[in-house]
Amino acid sequence: MEAINLKEKFNLFNDQWTPKVITNLDDNHVYLTKIEGDFVWHSHENQDELFIVVEGRFRMDFRDKAVWVEEGEVLLVPAGTEHRPSAEAECKLLVIENAGTDHTGGVDDDRRQEEHERI
Amino acid sequence: MEAINLKEKFNLFNDQWTPKVITNLDDNHVYLTKIEGDFVWHSHENQDELFIVVEGRFRMDFRDKAVWVEEGEVLLVPAGTEHRPSAEAECKLLVIENAGTDHTGGVDDDRRQEEHERI
Repeated sequence: MEAINLKEKFNLFNDQWTPKVITNLDDNHVYLTKIEGDFVWHSHENQDELFIVVEGRFRMDFRDKAVWVEEGEVLLVPAGTEHRPSAEAECKLLVIENAGTDHTGGVDDDRRQEEHERI
Repeated sequence: MEAINLKEKFNLFNDQWTPKVITNLDDNHVYLTKIEGDFVWHSHENQDELFIVVEGRFRMDFRDKAVWVEEGEVLLVPAGTEHRPSAEAECKLLVIENAGTDHTGGVDDDRRQEEHERI
């Protein structure tokens, strides 16, 4: 059991849209990611997904609205809800979701990873 | 689906050691709490617990060591691990744990709550 410093962990990588798992919480992954630009529209049928903005801001597009999420804010995307994260400038996120969740919701995309790196 | 501003939520309450649920993540509670002083020694047999320091710092005592956790740091307490949070000055935490988890691990304490308020 050691404290995990988020800034130090974010300094370990520069690639974007690549979840880096920092710990597990029961059957969930707790991961960091840097995002910029648009991701793919997707949903996770049976799992909620929690986003915490550590630095920057991003916009979560839903089919009926868009929600800006600022530094120090949290967004919960309920299971089964189509969403698309988007960031005009790089945004650093802490995300928690079930370890079995496909981060693109099964949507084919160059950024899709079967396994996430641990840092 | 709305962004949840942590500072605004922390401004809604002054009591300490009282989890305030801001959202659910699958079967977990995501809650805010303000802590100061020592909590009780306890453990959660089957559930991990994740602590994120939003403001301030705290010390997590384990039976064999103590870990300081600073602002912007995260600590995972594995299931079954005895722990005691402690803060010399008020510390603001975001905590994620199974919604069925007893926050004192069943230990009798004046601060024990059967149900957590939602804010």
